[in-house]
Amino acid sequence: MLRCLLRFLTAAALFASTAFGQSPAERLKSSEIRAAFAAVERNEPRMIETQIHVCEIPAPPFHEDARGKELERQFTEAGLKDVRIDKAGNVIGVRPGKAAHPNLVLAAHLDTVFPEGTDVHVTREGTLLKGPGIGDDCRGLAVVLGVIHALNDARVQASGTITFVADVGEEGLGDLRGMKQLFYESLKGQIDEFISVDGTGLGLTNIGVGSNRYKVTFKGPGGHSYGAFGMANPIQAMGRAIAKIDAFDVPTQPKTTFNVGRVGGGTSVNAIPFETWMEVDMRSADVAALKAVDGKFHAALKEAVEEENARWHNRGPVSVSAELVGMRPAGQTSKDSPIVQTALAVSRALGIQETLHEGSTDSNVPMNLHIPAITISGGGIGSGAHSLNETFDTKDSWKGTQRALLLAVTLAQ
Amino acid sequence: MLRCLLRFLTAAALFASTAFGQSPAERLKSSEIRAAFAAVERNEPRMIETQIHVCEIPAPPFHEDARGKELERQFTEAGLKDVRIDKAGNVIGVRPGKAAHPNLVLAAHLDTVFPEGTDVHVTREGTLLKGPGIGDDCRGLAVVLGVIHALNDARVQASGTITFVADVGEEGLGDLRGMKQLFYESLKGQIDEFISVDGTGLGLTNIGVGSNRYKVTFKGPGGHSYGAFGMANPIQAMGRAIAKIDAFDVPTQPKTTFNVGRVGGGTSVNAIPFETWMEVDMRSADVAALKAVDGKFHAALKEAVEEENARWHNRGPVSVSAELVGMRPAGQTSKDSPIVQTALAVSRALGIQETLHEGSTDSNVPMNLHIPAITISGGGIGSGAHSLNETFDTKDSWKGTQRALLLAVTLAQ
Repeated sequence: MLRCLLRFLTAAALFASTAFGQSPAERLKSSEIRAAFAAVERNEPRMIETQIHVCEIPAPPFHEDARGKELERQFTEAGLKDVRIDKAGNVIGVRPGKAAHPNLVLAAHLDTVFPEGTDVHVTREGTLLKGPGIGDDCRGLAVVLGVIHALNDARVQASGTITFVADVGEEGLGDLRGMKQLFYESLKGQIDEFISVDGTGLGLTNIGVGSNRYKVTFKGPGGHSYGAFGMANPIQAMGRAIAKIDAFDVPTQPKTTFNVGRVGGGTSVNAIPFETWMEVDMRSADVAALKAVDGKFHAALKEAVEEENARWHNRGPVSVSAELVGMRPAGQTSKDSPIVQTALAVSRALGIQETLHEGSTDSNVPMNLHIPAITISGGGIGSGAHSLNETFDTKDSWKGTQRALLLAVTLAQ
Repeated sequence: MLRCLLRFLTAAALFASTAFGQSPAERLKSSEIRAAFAAVERNEPRMIETQIHVCEIPAPPFHEDARGKELERQFTEAGLKDVRIDKAGNVIGVRPGKAAHPNLVLAAHLDTVFPEGTDVHVTREGTLLKGPGIGDDCRGLAVVLGVIHALNDARVQASGTITFVADVGEEGLGDLRGMKQLFYESLKGQIDEFISVDGTGLGLTNIGVGSNRYKVTFKGPGGHSYGAFGMANPIQAMGRAIAKIDAFDVPTQPKTTFNVGRVGGGTSVNAIPFETWMEVDMRSADVAALKAVDGKFHAALKEAVEEENARWHNRGPVSVSAELVGMRPAGQTSKDSPIVQTALAVSRALGIQETLHEGSTDSNVPMNLHIPAITISGGGIGSGAHSLNETFDTKDSWKGTQRALLLAVTLAQ
């Protein structure tokens, strides 16, 4: 109850500060922000060096520890307080303000999509850096460090706390496990606002597309295609399920999707298979819509198996099991919310043409908990994310850090 | 026309000979058959040695040539005329009778299911032989050689011709290519009756189950499961096709079957696949029934793709192609036909309890051409056919050779 009240007061204070307090445009004129912005530009070449250095420490899914150790060292060296690595591997460091709240988290993710053994050497040609993960999300980590150093150099003290996080498990199978740890355990109930810095460009994401992913397995006794004919067939039960899924009616607003992405199974053309599987992905930015399509999916599996067994008079019956292999909570931060309105005001003040995006990022977790959260990108120009040919053009990349800094200071007031 | 008349006269003569001429039971009492039966028993140990010797020459699918060369040598040594190897690799040798017709073919297959590099060494413990292919169909080859040698030893001259064949491509992917070559080209129009000696025991097969096998591929452009949602999905089109196939109504008499045996495709759970495939097997002993289910299958593929494309408003349309990867013609030799009645009379005369079987053997090809054909097994006791632990118990195995000999001489009269 007290926590709810606190959150309400925090949100009200936040709204007041943006609507009636110092606007980002006004704040830009202050000497401390002008000093901080100058520090960002001055420090940028060093931050780019750090971006490369960090990126050459491999951080495959579930093995972010070496890169995490380096961020822990950098956080400590930059004077953050209470620097620690939590159970999941998130690196956390605090920059205290005049008050404990609001507590804004500014985060970037440590992990990449690249498996162990990938050559993560970064090459440089003029302003162009090339290396796996150099934009996604070594740039985010460089922005986080750039904000800390510029605030330090300009001796900016925010009204509230800024907690810096380098987190694990953002990509694919990582399944947002870093965020789940942070919001469900490590800093449970302590975070008032959240910004993730992810990737390149100057985008702004306020809709968190959630997803449920399943590996579905159909089993039966199997047998000879001719000798045992008349026995229920797991692949044929799966075909019935897929046909039902294909016919799902889903809303276009909020956009809700489904996909049967992979199938496999069976041993021989002339054998009734004993096992087959499929992988299914369902997504929506809307919690209820995702739940609805998930419910249809489970019903379709059940009906398909019942139909298959009835069709073959229950001979050698087929069964099905669905294993949840990925779950990203859905959520969104309203475009009318103080955090989004503040972010748009910051962009306007900096002359950035902003449109709102949807995506699946670290912000999904706080959005799902109704904690104000957005994801911004880290500046510069990127290409080929998730490919071995990923590049990052450093031209004017300091703009990304300045935007993050102004947004963080405004929100932490 | 002339050929039809000839075939009619041959069939009539055959029927007359069994119904009104010398029955197998009477023939058994003749001195020449008694001498031949004695030779079979006397020669059996040598034939078992040959069975082992032949079996230790590898004959993987499509590589039967080494074993074929050995059979060519044995046929020649046993005095067969016009010994040759045809285009497909079948070894053919003729034992002329008093007249050119009827021309009975007695065949066994050279090929095994075992890939190159399989250890085909045969071990022996008492009466038990163990080795890949020792029963299926090294036993058949030993019976064919045993019949030739016993006929020679007893100086039996049949009324018609007996053509001995060691053929290729009986197993799996071989797709009966030896028989197709023999009946469609090498001995086209020259064969009046056909007996295949295949495997162990004393069975009799008069129904040739035909099969059509397809590898079906569904293709589309593919894309991101969320970003490109609304695009037709090859796996989902395949699901629709499988659901339709699963609902096929097929006759139980003649037994007609279908099976989706294997599926595979897709690159990732969160990608609309660009390609997927399935393998489908359909079987029947009835040509018309097989054709009917094959027609339903092609219609189902077409409908499924049309439905999938309509469901997604033709965005990124999906296409399908079905490649015929196996085709065994269906056919049967009526249980009332002279050849089956003669075979049953031979069994009765030898005290063999006979029931009629169905199967997929070399006889499928002549059955499909309405040439009287049956498959008999080669005696002894077998186990584990198509496995590396295949065994053959030689106990009383000479009975298989005696049965084949009496049947051949009766039919070739």
